[in-house]
Amino acid sequence: MDRKEFRDLASPETAREAIESLSLEGGIERVPLEDARGRVLVARLDAELDVPGFDRASMDGYALRARDTFGADEADPARLAVVGEVHAGEEPDVALEAGDAVEISTGAVMPSGADAMVPVERTDRVERGSTADGNGGAVSDDGDAVLIRTSVAPGDNVMFAGADVAAGERALGPGTRITPRDVGLLSAIGVDEVPVRSRPTVGIVSTGDELVRPGEDVDSARGEIYDVNSYTIAAGVEDAGGEAVLYPHAGDDQDEMERVLREAASECDLVLSSGSTSASAVDVIYRVIEEQGELLLHGVGVKPGKPMLVGRLEESAYVGLPGYPVSAMMVFRTFVAPALREAAGVPEPETATVSGELAREVRSEQGRHRLLPVGLVERGPTPTADGGRKGADETGETLVYPVDKGSGATTSLAHADGVVEVPAETDYLEAGASLSVSLFSPDVRPPSILGVGEDDPTLNRLLDRLTNPRYLSVGSRPGLRRLREGTPDIAVVAGPLEPDGEVVELGDWEREWGLVTRAGNPDDIDGLADLVDRDLGFVNRTTDSGLRTSLERALATLADDRGVDTHDLVDAIDGFDVALRAHESPARRVIAGEADVAIGLADTADRLDLAFVPLGTQSVRVLANPDRTAKAGVCDLESALVELPEMR
Amino acid sequence: MDRKEFRDLASPETAREAIESLSLEGGIERVPLEDARGRVLVARLDAELDVPGFDRASMDGYALRARDTFGADEADPARLAVVGEVHAGEEPDVALEAGDAVEISTGAVMPSGADAMVPVERTDRVERGSTADGNGGAVSDDGDAVLIRTSVAPGDNVMFAGADVAAGERALGPGTRITPRDVGLLSAIGVDEVPVRSRPTVGIVSTGDELVRPGEDVDSARGEIYDVNSYTIAAGVEDAGGEAVLYPHAGDDQDEMERVLREAASECDLVLSSGSTSASAVDVIYRVIEEQGELLLHGVGVKPGKPMLVGRLEESAYVGLPGYPVSAMMVFRTFVAPALREAAGVPEPETATVSGELAREVRSEQGRHRLLPVGLVERGPTPTADGGRKGADETGETLVYPVDKGSGATTSLAHADGVVEVPAETDYLEAGASLSVSLFSPDVRPPSILGVGEDDPTLNRLLDRLTNPRYLSVGSRPGLRRLREGTPDIAVVAGPLEPDGEVVELGDWEREWGLVTRAGNPDDIDGLADLVDRDLGFVNRTTDSGLRTSLERALATLADDRGVDTHDLVDAIDGFDVALRAHESPARRVIAGEADVAIGLADTADRLDLAFVPLGTQSVRVLANPDRTAKAGVCDLESALVELPEMR
Repeated sequence: MDRKEFRDLASPETAREAIESLSLEGGIERVPLEDARGRVLVARLDAELDVPGFDRASMDGYALRARDTFGADEADPARLAVVGEVHAGEEPDVALEAGDAVEISTGAVMPSGADAMVPVERTDRVERGSTADGNGGAVSDDGDAVLIRTSVAPGDNVMFAGADVAAGERALGPGTRITPRDVGLLSAIGVDEVPVRSRPTVGIVSTGDELVRPGEDVDSARGEIYDVNSYTIAAGVEDAGGEAVLYPHAGDDQDEMERVLREAASECDLVLSSGSTSASAVDVIYRVIEEQGELLLHGVGVKPGKPMLVGRLEESAYVGLPGYPVSAMMVFRTFVAPALREAAGVPEPETATVSGELAREVRSEQGRHRLLPVGLVERGPTPTADGGRKGADETGETLVYPVDKGSGATTSLAHADGVVEVPAETDYLEAGASLSVSLFSPDVRPPSILGVGEDDPTLNRLLDRLTNPRYLSVGSRPGLRRLREGTPDIAVVAGPLEPDGEVVELGDWEREWGLVTRAGNPDDIDGLADLVDRDLGFVNRTTDSGLRTSLERALATLADDRGVDTHDLVDAIDGFDVALRAHESPARRVIAGEADVAIGLADTADRLDLAFVPLGTQSVRVLANPDRTAKAGVCDLESALVELPEMR
Repeated sequence: MDRKEFRDLASPETAREAIESLSLEGGIERVPLEDARGRVLVARLDAELDVPGFDRASMDGYALRARDTFGADEADPARLAVVGEVHAGEEPDVALEAGDAVEISTGAVMPSGADAMVPVERTDRVERGSTADGNGGAVSDDGDAVLIRTSVAPGDNVMFAGADVAAGERALGPGTRITPRDVGLLSAIGVDEVPVRSRPTVGIVSTGDELVRPGEDVDSARGEIYDVNSYTIAAGVEDAGGEAVLYPHAGDDQDEMERVLREAASECDLVLSSGSTSASAVDVIYRVIEEQGELLLHGVGVKPGKPMLVGRLEESAYVGLPGYPVSAMMVFRTFVAPALREAAGVPEPETATVSGELAREVRSEQGRHRLLPVGLVERGPTPTADGGRKGADETGETLVYPVDKGSGATTSLAHADGVVEVPAETDYLEAGASLSVSLFSPDVRPPSILGVGEDDPTLNRLLDRLTNPRYLSVGSRPGLRRLREGTPDIAVVAGPLEPDGEVVELGDWEREWGLVTRAGNPDDIDGLADLVDRDLGFVNRTTDSGLRTSLERALATLADDRGVDTHDLVDAIDGFDVALRAHESPARRVIAGEADVAIGLADTADRLDLAFVPLGTQSVRVLANPDRTAKAGVCDLESALVELPEMR
């Protein structure tokens, strides 16, 4: 492909071709046999020797001349002189003449003169000096003898040299991905080192002053955040058969960024930059690639992924990924991983793609090829009238639901299983449409259960007892709504909310809620009235939360008692509108000194060593979609709920 | 499970239970995030911080108070004073008052006083001293200003602290197998080290004086062979999520064997012994386990696998595998791998099991649970009348054929894809029966093409051009027979043999055959007559070989010429009955000094630097099963055949 610049956006096909045109292959290396599993052979390996290398006894018994056994049977055995013995790993020190036999063990070398063997079970050894002929008769003899009670043909019970693998035979061909049984074949022909395709090395350069590597401290006041893409993309690279090299974080300093880029390019087969959302970082990279390398493509008509850069720098290929984690992962999975797998010689496993049915309609912006992050949920077997399941093995169809928390959110990455490509000409996908999902990793499995609703510490402990659950803590109200819409298996609802469709209640527990304040309750907070009447900084939960609902009901009761309007009480609370999403978040604001008192659970106060002022209890209920009650994960949760009293 | 000895054979279920009762778990370890992919979390990880940790601008633009934009639109923009700027990774050094705006970049901290932001596309900056109001009017101003051409609500284009992940939220649960997207979530919450299940360590002890590690020299005269099981089982262990440790080869010395066994037991979670077929080695192991450990089970009613030992030694579990490679692999796959996967927390991938249809009937010995090694071949799409395929994606059903070369043969391991369990009560499986195959590895894929027949160097080069072909060099005659029986896709036939059913000829080539002798032809061999008339040691091919057929025809012609019986000529050739299986084997006997002259190909003589006396040419034909001509692998071979003249 010649040097090109795309002032207009390139098509996704052009982007794929541009990436394919970059040579990502990593050359050839020799690895010891014990490290060969999963690697890809680059040359044919022929056997350089016969296997076995000698005529080999297949059983324990006697080596002999077949002709000496002709006519022998149980009733009329042949009597042969035992002239020696040979064990596995020994060179025979004896040659057979007519009428001779040699005791031989499995795997031993057939002595010269022998052309067959008889297993020990069909023989009887007669000791020196014995005159038995096995039939009560008597013969004279001056050495050990053996009675052979069967006749054999030449070659019987012998594996001839080269019978397994003959020298010069083709053993394994180029392109073979070595599995354990191939290791076995290579062992058999004595190969202890194999020429394999090198894994493509992929340098990962993260840019952006705001990024901090996990493990270091982030300074939120300066807007620092953890670098999500570097390790994520590195793991994706390894998944696709490449070898990831993380380069030191370059910040937004232009000289430093250029130095790191060039270093990575000189050491790797491919450089991926990722992380920064800053226009200046993108500009620096663009300038370096354009001036000192070769720019194949700048800008692709795909959403997300529009600013994708494809080019070469030094001897390396270069692809720039979007900064947002979900976007980076989707673009990597769709455009980069297939090229890496091709270069590594590791084909995409069949399990990396699943098909399913769209859970709800999706409207798409026309004119841009779209990458849609999606989650999977299995319908499970259909429950029968008696509560059993129809067909235990039946998993039901897979539902595919769009994950739409926004590309900036890393949780959408945690909840998304893969990506669906929506072509530019498609502006509408109807519910029930059949889709092919490219999983983020072949190891991704649909969750055993998909739950939505209230965030709760007891629920977290229940989820710990399940294998591979997924729970989206969207709050009680949105949880109920989503359950009604049909995607999740269960919703968890706290407080006085009622479902308006048919649901199956799997179980419930009580939780104590109230006000959480500094350890020792230094402000002497006594109850709800203090919030209204005193000058205390409060932190609330969002209106989606069951806790908020209970708080509002308690305030209404207080307003009734005082004969005032609830609004007046609410207005009197400083921070009533500071609404946080998770059950621990308000309490953590108290710890941080940003509030005096917060709404929360007794459990949370206990865990975080804070004081607690009880205001009431509310029940937390687990409600299931009636069509999903036969699903294994739902049944497991039901069992865990039964054991809940013991767990607490 | 209490200490038990089984004088009678245990059932396969009892063996499974005994192995499950051994604790193979390897404990807990902490690994850095970059090594966490594929590992299994042992504890729940909650977020210890909010993500983002601050209210974050979602775009480049202006942070402001939403209230100041109310009513603004394109025609009537709001004019705000620009009082500062804040970039990603910077702490804002300005607070907003009413009427103020701050220039802000994506990812930066919202300055105090701002509650929303407007993207730069919906604004116009007006310079210091400008009096433009954006509508041609004039206002006076003494600083920079910005015209806001849209109204926003509080929170618009801002991602609030904790909106993605809130501190205290459940991030990942115990038992999660970490995929790249989970690495992303862990990165986001700053985790750089995770507690994971240790991989179970598996010590592999090989015994038997005859075994030599690949890479060393084997002395065939002493009956030495390469140790196949150690590396093969080690690779299987790694496949199943364990960590293999190979111990030095112990030979048959009893003290040494005991020392190695105890060392392995003290260092590993499981010890597997394998390799020796000698009764004495098995006895030593039995004695060590019984006297110094705990013997749970000795002898299982499964074929192969009867001598299986299950027990404990030191703190380790112990399982003894059969000595023959295919048997060892089957017993490992059936009994040990599932327990290892369980201990490693790595469930068996769905791809590790495939279902198919039995290609031909199998009769089984009654009363013993049987493990049957099998190969897979796909039928491929049905060819259409015009030579196309019906449905390009259709792969057709999978045929399952028993691989029956004998358990001592390592090639049956190379040609077997997995194992089928045949219960003791089943003595007959009919052709077409539906079977479930446990693959030796989830990476095993059915070959793209299954060929049988003549061994030929040109064919080997053709096969090198295909992806994942499988070829069994059984000889021309058996190749034709197998093609007729319907399992393979193609047969390769050399010499004057004709198929007796319908076949499709894909292509052919000629090969020159004759006599191969020492370099320089020191015996002055001129032709076939020398073989008959002179005292030369000859080496032949098997009767299955096309070369042998051509040789016999040439001898018949010579007999005709001389007016004698062919038998007389054959009897006069010393070594006519020394029949070797592979095309290079006779020539290698000449090199080894074990024969004067051998049947062979010009190609082989050339490659091995031997002299060649031509006797004729024969055609090698590639014949396809007419039902398989639409299969991708068959089409690829057909294309390679077209390019053959260029390859040679």
